[in-house]
Amino acid sequence: MAEERGSYESAGVSIARGERAVELMRSAVEGTHGPEVIGGPGGFAGLYALAGLKDPVLASTIDGVGTKVLVARSVGRYDTLGADIVNHCANDVLATGARPLFFLDYVGTGRLDPEAVAALVRGAAEACGELNIAVIGGETAEMPGLYGGGDFDVVGVCTGACERGDVITGEEARPGDAVIGLASSGLHTNGYTLARKVLADANLSYDDAPEPLGRSVGEAYLEPHRAYVREVRALREGVGVRGMAHITGGGLVGNLPRALGGLGAELDAGRWEEPAVFGLIRSSGNVPEDEMRHVFNLGVGFCAVLAPEEAERGVQTLRAAGCDAWKIGVVVEEPGVRFA
Amino acid sequence: MAEERGSYESAGVSIARGERAVELMRSAVEGTHGPEVIGGPGGFAGLYALAGLKDPVLASTIDGVGTKVLVARSVGRYDTLGADIVNHCANDVLATGARPLFFLDYVGTGRLDPEAVAALVRGAAEACGELNIAVIGGETAEMPGLYGGGDFDVVGVCTGACERGDVITGEEARPGDAVIGLASSGLHTNGYTLARKVLADANLSYDDAPEPLGRSVGEAYLEPHRAYVREVRALREGVGVRGMAHITGGGLVGNLPRALGGLGAELDAGRWEEPAVFGLIRSSGNVPEDEMRHVFNLGVGFCAVLAPEEAERGVQTLRAAGCDAWKIGVVVEEPGVRFA
Repeated sequence: MAEERGSYESAGVSIARGERAVELMRSAVEGTHGPEVIGGPGGFAGLYALAGLKDPVLASTIDGVGTKVLVARSVGRYDTLGADIVNHCANDVLATGARPLFFLDYVGTGRLDPEAVAALVRGAAEACGELNIAVIGGETAEMPGLYGGGDFDVVGVCTGACERGDVITGEEARPGDAVIGLASSGLHTNGYTLARKVLADANLSYDDAPEPLGRSVGEAYLEPHRAYVREVRALREGVGVRGMAHITGGGLVGNLPRALGGLGAELDAGRWEEPAVFGLIRSSGNVPEDEMRHVFNLGVGFCAVLAPEEAERGVQTLRAAGCDAWKIGVVVEEPGVRFA
Repeated sequence: MAEERGSYESAGVSIARGERAVELMRSAVEGTHGPEVIGGPGGFAGLYALAGLKDPVLASTIDGVGTKVLVARSVGRYDTLGADIVNHCANDVLATGARPLFFLDYVGTGRLDPEAVAALVRGAAEACGELNIAVIGGETAEMPGLYGGGDFDVVGVCTGACERGDVITGEEARPGDAVIGLASSGLHTNGYTLARKVLADANLSYDDAPEPLGRSVGEAYLEPHRAYVREVRALREGVGVRGMAHITGGGLVGNLPRALGGLGAELDAGRWEEPAVFGLIRSSGNVPEDEMRHVFNLGVGFCAVLAPEEAERGVQTLRAAGCDAWKIGVVVEEPGVRFA
């Protein structure tokens, strides 16, 4: 099966189209391989040597990018989806306290477009390269009876590891602790069903560039999901992190409690900057604030819980590492997330 | 987000349907958790403690089940797909020399059918339970604009580990070595595009039960992909294995070379038993033998390469472990697979 590389397989795909796609993505994928990646192409699974941990815990997560794939298809741009799926998965691994190590992807499609799939995988490989994550496998499956012609779905898996003692569950959070919010880059990969509906209802197209955005709706909607791997590494080197949350589907309301070990939080929504794309969605669709908060990250893509006396140092560390951050609230006894 | 369990998330899914699906699958998934699985529900990634290895190599693979999902949908049976995706992935990990440890699944669908998804995940959990693999996460995504109403795709990821010295690449294979074939249970998860086309062309339905099958076409087509984990463990305890191949898309011709480190093999097609389903496809569709060999496993789902003097003991060990096996050929200098 000449279309395979490493464990990158193309199932049921025309050999010619599969070979072309693999050819187009090969060097990008191989560029993510350090000495930890062992075995040559043609293996049945990707192999990664895990070194330097005494009592290792592996962390693994699987995700899609939801209907952001439909936006990408409408706009005709695919590389950003690769960054989306990598960064989404890597942030989930990160939130457990583990360091993301390797990544695999799956693309299911109706008819393989080698250039589109290669752009997507190259985007994923580039994002992995920036985070020192190895792409050790993938699969492209052509299923004309299931997916429409150029339709496709994207799935990613990231696996990481850390010492058992470095796992962060949120159980260490205490009332009075500070909740630090890390700036998101936009919608990330959540809320696209509502975001697309609002566009359609408001008769806006992806080519339109309404005033507050300063760019086209398509560009704003496809802005890649931001990774927090380097910033959080810097944070953990400087302060003691008691809880972490990746703010995905469900927003702050749905995800922050996962960092609080049964406690709650009071947030001050005025403390952070909200990207313009959320204002566009809110006003174009007359979306109630409560719904906005349950669907979108609204500008905070990741949270860290710190002891109150470390809050300011944490914020400064994150900013020095290149990510805007704010103290957005405090941990309280009563479960749930409330906005001041 | 009440519909989450462990890192089992339901993205963009109606809360009620998502909760119902998770409720239906919860105990099956939790039943696969031993002490290695750490952290409670609500984590951002599944956590698995890796113990007992000095120089660990991780092996990870991602796969779908191709258009077997369309057969399942036509027949209205979903549990077997769960076994399919688990066993397919586990065999890929196994072929590298690693022991499969944990599994995650993704189901993308147009409209979540809680009973169908739960049946699928329960089937996966049951298959994992039999192989001592922990289900540590999953995602169900409802994407009505991408998948048709009840359409869905299934993706699985299995990760395993072994000592670096136990990785099997096929580089140890030598001319004269024996190729041992392990019996498949049927189509496994490959060749369904051709298998479905043959049915349609021959005006056969999934309810028909033509003579040689002894059961309905639907049952034969949905026969789960067989796992070889326990049998191969028994084999490796008894003999030295020099190469292994999981026979998936591409058949023996496409996959056996991956176990041979650049050498080839001469096979005697009369040496093993072919399940009746392949004869039905061959005769109903007048499929040329060369195409049959490039698309289907034809009865051999996994191969092991052994020193010639260990061949007979290997075959007996596999049979004692419950898997029919045969010496199906020999390794030769000239690359490629030829049939006598």
